[in-house]
Amino acid sequence: MTDHFADRLRSAVETKGGPICVGLDPVLEKLPEKMRQARDRVDALLTFSLDVIEAVRDEVPCVKVQSACYERYGSAGVAAYESVIEAARKAGLIVIADVKRADIGISSEHYAVGLLGESGDGPDAITINPYLGGDAIQPFIDHAAEHGKGLFNLVRTSNAGSDQLQSLLLEDGRTLAEAVAWVVDRMGDTEGLVSEASGDSLMGAVVGATKADEARTLRELMPKQVFLVPGFGAQGGSAEDVKACFRADGSGAIVTASRSVIYAWHDDADELGEQWPDAVRDAARTMKEQINEVVAARVKAAGKQAE
Amino acid sequence: MTDHFADRLRSAVETKGGPICVGLDPVLEKLPEKMRQARDRVDALLTFSLDVIEAVRDEVPCVKVQSACYERYGSAGVAAYESVIEAARKAGLIVIADVKRADIGISSEHYAVGLLGESGDGPDAITINPYLGGDAIQPFIDHAAEHGKGLFNLVRTSNAGSDQLQSLLLEDGRTLAEAVAWVVDRMGDTEGLVSEASGDSLMGAVVGATKADEARTLRELMPKQVFLVPGFGAQGGSAEDVKACFRADGSGAIVTASRSVIYAWHDDADELGEQWPDAVRDAARTMKEQINEVVAARVKAAGKQAE
Repeated sequence: MTDHFADRLRSAVETKGGPICVGLDPVLEKLPEKMRQARDRVDALLTFSLDVIEAVRDEVPCVKVQSACYERYGSAGVAAYESVIEAARKAGLIVIADVKRADIGISSEHYAVGLLGESGDGPDAITINPYLGGDAIQPFIDHAAEHGKGLFNLVRTSNAGSDQLQSLLLEDGRTLAEAVAWVVDRMGDTEGLVSEASGDSLMGAVVGATKADEARTLRELMPKQVFLVPGFGAQGGSAEDVKACFRADGSGAIVTASRSVIYAWHDDADELGEQWPDAVRDAARTMKEQINEVVAARVKAAGKQAE
Repeated sequence: MTDHFADRLRSAVETKGGPICVGLDPVLEKLPEKMRQARDRVDALLTFSLDVIEAVRDEVPCVKVQSACYERYGSAGVAAYESVIEAARKAGLIVIADVKRADIGISSEHYAVGLLGESGDGPDAITINPYLGGDAIQPFIDHAAEHGKGLFNLVRTSNAGSDQLQSLLLEDGRTLAEAVAWVVDRMGDTEGLVSEASGDSLMGAVVGATKADEARTLRELMPKQVFLVPGFGAQGGSAEDVKACFRADGSGAIVTASRSVIYAWHDDADELGEQWPDAVRDAARTMKEQINEVVAARVKAAGKQAE
């Protein structure tokens, strides 16, 4: 599969009817009690993840698999993580592996091959960390371009402490996040990385949903980037917060939520019993409706501005 | 084992007679030909790594295991990585796992537990990435403090492109790397993190050996940090470059080299045959002598200044 990642993502968003992503961030303590008791830890995580994939596969275009949740259990956990990615791909979902990796030189190349897959296998995209600079990112770009994969570079993260570095003011008046955005824009705008069909680059950006005002600036700085927007739901990001992450035509962002969807059954766990995946599906559908309203508002506002 | 990581490291440096570290960054193409042909890829990597550990165990206090080299081969590679760490620990070496991880909230906690081990197992220390801010680092610190482990926070990396972000000038005149150094110093100077015996913090810093002038400033900004200094050897860092990473008393840094040691036999591969580990041992010993000369020069210069 060597078509362009961003076009596959666009097509999936159209098919499923909304630009959202469900984050698979399972932790043992929050799984259904029966599942937790009947199996070993890794098997319980895997089973839950596969059940969530089945629950949301017809509702959402995309899942984000949080590697940390599986790496917690070492190589056995990583094997489960690989199974989750394979199952999500087989379910027809676009799969983003949230690995936040970075290294230098040949080590970046190793990570690119290992985490994106040697040839068409593996997830559709991974998240990467920009701190080491552009030459550390280049091997990821090269491998992604060759195999039709995508990247989401951390630009503005959704955690409370992200200001500490990302909001630092540079002597030229930009914030650090804006400087990173400039790098992402420039590196992603090279020949072969931008889809001729859509104008999207394979190099996207992570822009947290808790920073609406900054999102507007970052959207301008990174016109070709697809934004992966975490922080919606449990992390406090509102639908309104994410509006500025979308382009005027309603494209350009995928909003991702984890806990508010995969644990949507928690308050009614006893009542739902084995039917808990229904609540996950409902939460995904509700989120999709909310985000679609936001996108419609974004397009409408842009239309008014243009008049 | 809940003694302080930095004290274990000091003790190992004293026993082995020099503050150096050998980086296990094996790539398939560079392994002994027989080894490569006789085994599957992961098994060849593992065998080579174990042979290097045997070759250097009496010469060096510390090895750094590059996770990317093993993660390249998925969960099977990660299982080999775990075996390498276990073997190095059993060989009495201090083990730094070079994983350069970072995430937020509970995901950082997952990484800390998974990568440092659930209770005394796993490596002695890991490398982490500061881009997400202090709250992303805190779970690593908490887990490390509880289990006598160490951290090395990326401050100034040794790659050519590291200037792109790390040298950016802030509005207050500092570079980004200096701002990160300030965070590392502050977060590492909390009660319980600093050894009462040595004054070293469990939170160390990665400071590339290719930036000698900056190392002086960073050394001042991070007085309690142990510096992990990559870039010596194949990456172009000279012994002189690393001098400024040491404190006036000769403590405070571990210089790490990978390719120049583990592939020291390449030019004489045919002649050495199965004896290639001898060349690895010799290279480690030579590096130790070079670094010890640098440390002696550092101490001598500091003594003169004090007169």
